[in-house]
Amino acid sequence: MRDVLPEEVALRDWALAQILAVYRRHGFVHIETPAVESLRLLLRSDGGENEKLIYKILKRGEKLAAAGGAEELADLGLRFDLTVPLVRYYAHNHARLPQPLKAIQIGPVWRAERPQQGRYRQFTQCDIDILGVASEVAEIELILATTEALAALGLKDLTVRLNDRRVLTALVGHCGFDPARAGSVFIALDKLDKVGRDGVATELREAGHPVDAADRMLDVLASSATPAALRARLGARVDEGVWRGLQRILDTVETQAAGRFRLVFDATLVRGMGYYTGPIFEVQHGGGTSSIAGGGRYDRMISKFMGRDVPATGFSIGFERVISILLERGPASEADGERVALVFDEAEGLGPVLALARDLREQGKAVLLETRTKRLGKQLQDLETRGFRKIGVVGADGAVEWRAPRAGEART
Amino acid sequence: MRDVLPEEVALRDWALAQILAVYRRHGFVHIETPAVESLRLLLRSDGGENEKLIYKILKRGEKLAAAGGAEELADLGLRFDLTVPLVRYYAHNHARLPQPLKAIQIGPVWRAERPQQGRYRQFTQCDIDILGVASEVAEIELILATTEALAALGLKDLTVRLNDRRVLTALVGHCGFDPARAGSVFIALDKLDKVGRDGVATELREAGHPVDAADRMLDVLASSATPAALRARLGARVDEGVWRGLQRILDTVETQAAGRFRLVFDATLVRGMGYYTGPIFEVQHGGGTSSIAGGGRYDRMISKFMGRDVPATGFSIGFERVISILLERGPASEADGERVALVFDEAEGLGPVLALARDLREQGKAVLLETRTKRLGKQLQDLETRGFRKIGVVGADGAVEWRAPRAGEART
Repeated sequence: MRDVLPEEVALRDWALAQILAVYRRHGFVHIETPAVESLRLLLRSDGGENEKLIYKILKRGEKLAAAGGAEELADLGLRFDLTVPLVRYYAHNHARLPQPLKAIQIGPVWRAERPQQGRYRQFTQCDIDILGVASEVAEIELILATTEALAALGLKDLTVRLNDRRVLTALVGHCGFDPARAGSVFIALDKLDKVGRDGVATELREAGHPVDAADRMLDVLASSATPAALRARLGARVDEGVWRGLQRILDTVETQAAGRFRLVFDATLVRGMGYYTGPIFEVQHGGGTSSIAGGGRYDRMISKFMGRDVPATGFSIGFERVISILLERGPASEADGERVALVFDEAEGLGPVLALARDLREQGKAVLLETRTKRLGKQLQDLETRGFRKIGVVGADGAVEWRAPRAGEART
Repeated sequence: MRDVLPEEVALRDWALAQILAVYRRHGFVHIETPAVESLRLLLRSDGGENEKLIYKILKRGEKLAAAGGAEELADLGLRFDLTVPLVRYYAHNHARLPQPLKAIQIGPVWRAERPQQGRYRQFTQCDIDILGVASEVAEIELILATTEALAALGLKDLTVRLNDRRVLTALVGHCGFDPARAGSVFIALDKLDKVGRDGVATELREAGHPVDAADRMLDVLASSATPAALRARLGARVDEGVWRGLQRILDTVETQAAGRFRLVFDATLVRGMGYYTGPIFEVQHGGGTSSIAGGGRYDRMISKFMGRDVPATGFSIGFERVISILLERGPASEADGERVALVFDEAEGLGPVLALARDLREQGKAVLLETRTKRLGKQLQDLETRGFRKIGVVGADGAVEWRAPRAGEART
């Protein structure tokens, strides 16, 4: 976990405000769940590897004293994503929530990962989810809203990849894998981008899958750039409605995208989570292969918590990755209004400088007051370095001597 | 800890944006620290009772296996306030931070309190702090910024109470208490608002303090409405500069307040934390006696973390209390732009309704799409109840039939 310095926080605040505004315009409502959930809940969520990374919270007082062994030391944990808490929230509050629920969630999650470049143990996720809509209208809305939010951050050259878990499952059966071990095939296939065809084949062989099944799958995938091509191969293994749904998403989104982003079918897309049941999607930016957003349909998760199925699908922006892309482009100067620094002499009385600051603030400017130090020249230089475009030195009578911006830096 | 429903989240988002905007205009910069800090840090912070309420995080893997006893099961904890993390942040990052640092912090903190009405185990604090300014200019800035932020939320009738820990310490000595037990006297005196004069006297007696000292202190306080009156009693026990500072704060702020709030000296104000060293302050709203914001100077805290003294003072808004006051006043309708709901027939194709939604969103409106259900009348009524002022039913040809708002509810 890490500290965030003021320049980055300003950028994060700006980006979150943009994302939130877009999602609100798309009719989503912002909800909040606590950072801490019951450990029992977190552990029965099909969260895959993430469940191993939960930070557990030590019991207290009598409960701790009564704990029998290491397994009983904790009954709470920090959330590792926003989907599990959303499902618990929905099960608990659905009578007081709009139906269907279109929810925005923004907040930190925690995973006890090994420290590595660009990965943090506390990081922010921005999710939208639609609960209660079975049709692919939900996926269309998610894709349009998420790409618009990313575009509002200035991210161009976006590619959305689309696949469907039911297609992947059929593919596994078609190629001769053991259907009961589909999860392990997905995990290997998910690495295709990183390790290539040979790497996937090796991993499948080492996991004990038939070699010819692996070859067959990789051949099918290599020659199935369109849903139609794959459909011809898989035949009746995939329900007609699945293809119709994928085609509807592709056609409708393409009309609406108007060149602002690409949506492509990609039969190699897997997504890590065990709970997906239908369409899945991921966003790439520029030439990068790593995703900046991802999601999918998880129609059978809510029934674990409330005894009936509620169709559900969601899309999550990887906020830390987005911020690291934005940081490479420079500071969030567009986010700032005009910033003014007023340097004053404490001995002269505060009245005039406070009155001036109030006037400037009423005009919407951000005004920093600083007591004049012995080394005024250095103080003014420091303020310029910190990005103050307008710096005034307030004199004895309240008169202000405005410092001229340095050549080439004049901006208003 | 609790879930927050959409209406309240909308209000919270609006309030936080107002507060953040005011603090930015006052030249403060937003910073972020992680929710989790080292337990050793949290436990040496002079946080008083709060240290007992820390949620500890269970060690993992080998570290857990190697833990010797109950005391060694955890080495991390959830922060219980934003001041301790700020001081650690400053010690760690000061070379890369503006000097002096004027910091905004907004975020959740956790305390394992017994559940009770209006108290949550996770709650949000909004703090501003000034690190590196010894003069009372800092207190003046904090009071002006915080009252302006509260006023921006529509909170009128604000009273700021001001006292100084050095005055309280002198008072304890003057009345004949044991100076080494000043902390215990402060704790009793802090309850004056709630338990009255007799209650305080009883608590002091039961804690073993001299009865005549208690009587004398309560007499002095009852007859010391102004700094001058108290100064006459305490004489040389209080340094001249302390009175000058208090008077400067009172005079300067009064000029600037221009009737928007009251600032009063109150010798009975204590504030709970052990780390205060100078001026302390608290804000009351309306006739209420409980505070909605509080803070003070803590000049000796930073030296514990970085080996040299850095003057510091801060003001914290009790965000949950503020929100509960705002909720009593009704929903945050002023925060919403116009919200439009479009009900469409899935069978008719999505193109026209998506195009219409895009147009309306480009005008800044929040547009909710809903598939038409079998019970259209009830669906439209539900949307009205949820606050949609403009509801359109999109027909086969893309034509929209706008539903007229009910009498008395027409608003644009």
